[in-house]
Amino acid sequence: MISADWIAVDWGTSSLRAWAVGKDGIVAEASSSDGMSTLDRDGFEPVLLSLVGDWLGDAVTPVIACGMVGARQGWAEAPYVPVPCPPMVADGCITVAAGDPRIDVRIIPGLSQDAPADVMRGEETQIAGFLASEPGFSWTICLPGTHTKWVQVGAGRITRFQTMMTGELFALLFRHSVLRHSVGGAAWDDDAFIAAVRDGNANPDRLAGELFALRAEDLLHGLAPASARARLSGLLIGAELAAASFDGGDVAVIGAASLGQHYATGLSVIGRKARIIDGAGITLAGLTQAWHALEGTFA
Amino acid sequence: MISADWIAVDWGTSSLRAWAVGKDGIVAEASSSDGMSTLDRDGFEPVLLSLVGDWLGDAVTPVIACGMVGARQGWAEAPYVPVPCPPMVADGCITVAAGDPRIDVRIIPGLSQDAPADVMRGEETQIAGFLASEPGFSWTICLPGTHTKWVQVGAGRITRFQTMMTGELFALLFRHSVLRHSVGGAAWDDDAFIAAVRDGNANPDRLAGELFALRAEDLLHGLAPASARARLSGLLIGAELAAASFDGGDVAVIGAASLGQHYATGLSVIGRKARIIDGAGITLAGLTQAWHALEGTFA
Repeated sequence: MISADWIAVDWGTSSLRAWAVGKDGIVAEASSSDGMSTLDRDGFEPVLLSLVGDWLGDAVTPVIACGMVGARQGWAEAPYVPVPCPPMVADGCITVAAGDPRIDVRIIPGLSQDAPADVMRGEETQIAGFLASEPGFSWTICLPGTHTKWVQVGAGRITRFQTMMTGELFALLFRHSVLRHSVGGAAWDDDAFIAAVRDGNANPDRLAGELFALRAEDLLHGLAPASARARLSGLLIGAELAAASFDGGDVAVIGAASLGQHYATGLSVIGRKARIIDGAGITLAGLTQAWHALEGTFA
Repeated sequence: MISADWIAVDWGTSSLRAWAVGKDGIVAEASSSDGMSTLDRDGFEPVLLSLVGDWLGDAVTPVIACGMVGARQGWAEAPYVPVPCPPMVADGCITVAAGDPRIDVRIIPGLSQDAPADVMRGEETQIAGFLASEPGFSWTICLPGTHTKWVQVGAGRITRFQTMMTGELFALLFRHSVLRHSVGGAAWDDDAFIAAVRDGNANPDRLAGELFALRAEDLLHGLAPASARARLSGLLIGAELAAASFDGGDVAVIGAASLGQHYATGLSVIGRKARIIDGAGITLAGLTQAWHALEGTFA
């Protein structure tokens, strides 16, 4: 018998994760692949109830969600809050009109930047979770992923940010382009990655040509797939590091183990120190920040 | 009743085009979508015969083909000829072991460059066709496409070349990335294209960030799809123009009408003169150069 004070939900484009949180922390958790992109507006509540129904009692259970669930194509739109602002803006949370009286659902807003135009949804909650444990952190946070975010933080606020499509470019080139014939497999060549980061960083303008050279190197000189794959990643990350705005100081890299490690390696290649923050607990820590801010607003 | 002296074939990755050529020029032509990528090694001859069978008589008919038909995954591999060399190297043409005694098939070799590693297959024949009508042409030829080629030519020879994946990047981003939600439709905004060429050319390193900005501009400011599509193209072409090696002089742009026009516009934005060469007759002109060189070798 689960007894949850509230339920935390991380609902992204391709998956969904929920935690039942009690007085002493997590009492249950569950996940599914019913991401935002697979659902119509009416599909969100049934999916949530099928996942967390067993955690609900007679009283109303607060639910706090972050991520693409709050996008225009999500369950309900939580309008972007413009930066500069703190990563967690309680006033910007919206209440969802759920049909089931056992839940009271709130969605955390994403953040926007007017010029250069940019948006994030979900990462703001990770940043709030990170800053909860390191309130004095300044400078740059990097959140690698499909759309990598580079975020400038100071005095507990996000001042500006920048999204790079590096991860999506890698996936498209790896799976769908002519390079797929040359980069197959999961093997990895560290030296090729490091050399490519250096090349991509020194000459980011040559990217479109360097990419085809991977295919030509394979055809003419038998480039190994592990080297081609690492070089593809390194060229893209190197070019990204040339474009990313850094303030001074170390970079905190928040993210999945191997991708976070590649970014940290890339940063060291260009002479920057990075520390890797495990992303696993960070989102729940951010949702918990929202709970503290919103607790009094639940009936 | 067709009577062909020889048959010219342009056999690319995704399609196939054949001409029956008599004393006074083209007497028939045919095409199909049986490109190299759709065929096994044994599939090429039946496809060719189904397309040109009606043009064959009792005597052996010479067939000269160019393009990906000569790739490792093609009908038979015509090994690359290294540059510098003339675009048409008759000694490099290979004879295919066809089963049907009515045809004698030759394939024109592609060209390679050792360092930076690069390859072309098919474009060398277009260049040969172009140089046939302008033997004195020097400087730069641009052949826009999925894999755009920038080719340096002098004294009838190709000295070096460079392949850019711009066209494939555009197609992947347009069809498969998150940008597909923002760039839909076939409309075109010339001013947005010109501004984007300028931006992409001035700051090619910012590409990964500028790309996501198209999505954010749509979400935040309602960027029109015509502008987003033109800007996507302009950013990629602008960055390509920053990376392409130019010798002095005008650029000859060989290619399909609208894409060729975009490249010519882009070149004018960065202060270079371009003239557009209609690509339609160029390939056959190049195959005719090969016919002149090989005619004596057919039994």
